[in-house]
Amino acid sequence: MNILICLDSFKDSITAYNAGEALKKGLQKASKSFSIKNLPVADGGEGTVDALVKATGGKRIELKVKDALMRTTDSFYGMLGDGKTAVIEMAAASGIEKLTREERNPMTTSTFGTGQLIAHAIKTGCKNIIIGIGGSATNDGGVGMAMALGAKFIDKDGNEVAQGGGNLQRIANIDLTKLNKTIKGVSVTVACDVDNPLTGPEGAAAVYGPQKGATPEMVDVLDKGLNHLSGLIDANFNKQINTIPGAGAAGGLGGGLLAFLNAELKPGFEIVKNTLNLKEEIGKVDLVFTGEGKMDFQTKFGKTPHGVAKIAKASHIPVIAIAGTLGDNYQELNSEGFSSIFSILDRPCDLDFALKNAAQLIENLGEQLGHLMYMSVKKAYI
Amino acid sequence: MNILICLDSFKDSITAYNAGEALKKGLQKASKSFSIKNLPVADGGEGTVDALVKATGGKRIELKVKDALMRTTDSFYGMLGDGKTAVIEMAAASGIEKLTREERNPMTTSTFGTGQLIAHAIKTGCKNIIIGIGGSATNDGGVGMAMALGAKFIDKDGNEVAQGGGNLQRIANIDLTKLNKTIKGVSVTVACDVDNPLTGPEGAAAVYGPQKGATPEMVDVLDKGLNHLSGLIDANFNKQINTIPGAGAAGGLGGGLLAFLNAELKPGFEIVKNTLNLKEEIGKVDLVFTGEGKMDFQTKFGKTPHGVAKIAKASHIPVIAIAGTLGDNYQELNSEGFSSIFSILDRPCDLDFALKNAAQLIENLGEQLGHLMYMSVKKAYI
Repeated sequence: MNILICLDSFKDSITAYNAGEALKKGLQKASKSFSIKNLPVADGGEGTVDALVKATGGKRIELKVKDALMRTTDSFYGMLGDGKTAVIEMAAASGIEKLTREERNPMTTSTFGTGQLIAHAIKTGCKNIIIGIGGSATNDGGVGMAMALGAKFIDKDGNEVAQGGGNLQRIANIDLTKLNKTIKGVSVTVACDVDNPLTGPEGAAAVYGPQKGATPEMVDVLDKGLNHLSGLIDANFNKQINTIPGAGAAGGLGGGLLAFLNAELKPGFEIVKNTLNLKEEIGKVDLVFTGEGKMDFQTKFGKTPHGVAKIAKASHIPVIAIAGTLGDNYQELNSEGFSSIFSILDRPCDLDFALKNAAQLIENLGEQLGHLMYMSVKKAYI
Repeated sequence: MNILICLDSFKDSITAYNAGEALKKGLQKASKSFSIKNLPVADGGEGTVDALVKATGGKRIELKVKDALMRTTDSFYGMLGDGKTAVIEMAAASGIEKLTREERNPMTTSTFGTGQLIAHAIKTGCKNIIIGIGGSATNDGGVGMAMALGAKFIDKDGNEVAQGGGNLQRIANIDLTKLNKTIKGVSVTVACDVDNPLTGPEGAAAVYGPQKGATPEMVDVLDKGLNHLSGLIDANFNKQINTIPGAGAAGGLGGGLLAFLNAELKPGFEIVKNTLNLKEEIGKVDLVFTGEGKMDFQTKFGKTPHGVAKIAKASHIPVIAIAGTLGDNYQELNSEGFSSIFSILDRPCDLDFALKNAAQLIENLGEQLGHLMYMSVKKAYI
């Protein structure tokens, strides 16, 4: 029996890879006869680097870059098993979780560190760069990122403008000469699951500014700044990024990557699916496991396990899902490719216990499901 | 696919029958093609009447009898589907849970009400009486029970002795004439899972007296009383009950049933198993469900689900167990006939939530396991 494990991470608890290893261990306790592949999946958000690195036999590269406030911070990106694809989570450099609540201020925060990660990957020889852009602390339209790759943003007096979304309106001229040399022959794909345009009431500043620390006054300045930036980009490079869905993601980093790195925006799971050849991998097995920390009816609105189940369903491969919490109307998923769905919990306990003991709980459930499957292999009627 | 559901009750939460109905409902949600029989099981303790009545299509008979302090109390027993077998829980009349902590005093408590239940069942036409003797408030050696059936216990002055273990030493003579008429042609089986002799350091008073409210001084009096009683029984009826394992159960009610009603003591599950023809029922199906509120490695030391699994194992029928809590080393059960074991819980929650929502949780798990089984019916490899 060939089994493919495609778990997402269990948030605040266990990585996708480790969850998969625990499940594999449990299944193998039930029977050594199972052939099991652990292929962790992700949605382009937190945990994507780890999942893709582990799934492809790549490596994690640790380095120091600037955080959103231009302080040196420990960061990382992933080099996939092919040796030429880098996977970057922007939050690993310019993430909001790296700042205290008081420090959060999108007028000054910058994506410079994200640019440093990209620069390092290119220097290391990467030709494909996948960027997950969730969890940003910034609203600079990707200007900081571009600066780190050699772009110059000049004010009317001929000086480089300072970092931060609050300075975008000062930009008078953009020089991409050096940046264009750096990114030559490099293809950039952005994992983007939001549709926000760059500016306006649905734009980066209005929708995401407040949660990054912006006051209503700041939102106004930031929105004007992004609008000014997109005007300059239109005028100088004939690129109309303002209304492209997703340009407003990550404080306009989506738009900046479109404009400066000729990036392509794609749903995160699409990128993961393509990178891992998920369709082909699923087609090879008898059974797929998927799951994440919580599953409920909303899982069918684009969550990673649903992506896995959809592929499996199309190939008529059964899918067993596991989760810590089975929430409202999770049974709706049974018609979405999830053959059956189980919680890993095994007794009344609080969330903290569940989070801390996920590996053991997953292993235990895997063992019992393994027994059931082994039994079914031996007896046709179950 | 033929499925037999043999659940025990989930203590403090849901009866064996209702748990089975919930599971059945869930399984049938997954597929109408399952043929499912709900045959609740028990161990001779609390819930045995309900399980056997429901399993055999019998009825519950409600009546008023005396509680352990000779006050009128609501009670019940079960009339099984055959119309001639009664199932009585002694605790439904003479149980400790009917008394407040202050009222508990085995010097005065009596099994009289248990005798009234037996008398009612006999009068109603029952020829077989099964008695579960757990949860007693008494230490009267079954003297009160026998009184209710017509026995006379006379003191040296020719008066009937009063109720209660504290009066046993006053008995000078026993007259069973009327009782023997009453019980003629009636067979009594006692569900007994303890080995205590009637008296001595392992006897009824020493071991169970204190938890029924006896002081050390009372234990001494009670033990002497039971010893006196067994001496009289030996002298008058040539029955040696003192050292029979189980004679000390339920404050010596075990011994009293042996002596006065010629009862047979058997492990509770043996009685349930025989009454329900469990072996035959299990042999007819493709899959058995069992379980109770909590399962752990100790389940294999004679708990009801283990009894079910042992029968199924002997016939090579797979068994899926479900429980609220899976405790220490429950995996040891996998080699005891439990093919696989699942918790009904589906999220972090406290015990109270689990107890209150057991029916829904069981139904939900049943639905998912049903999907898995339905899938396995259609695909031989799972």
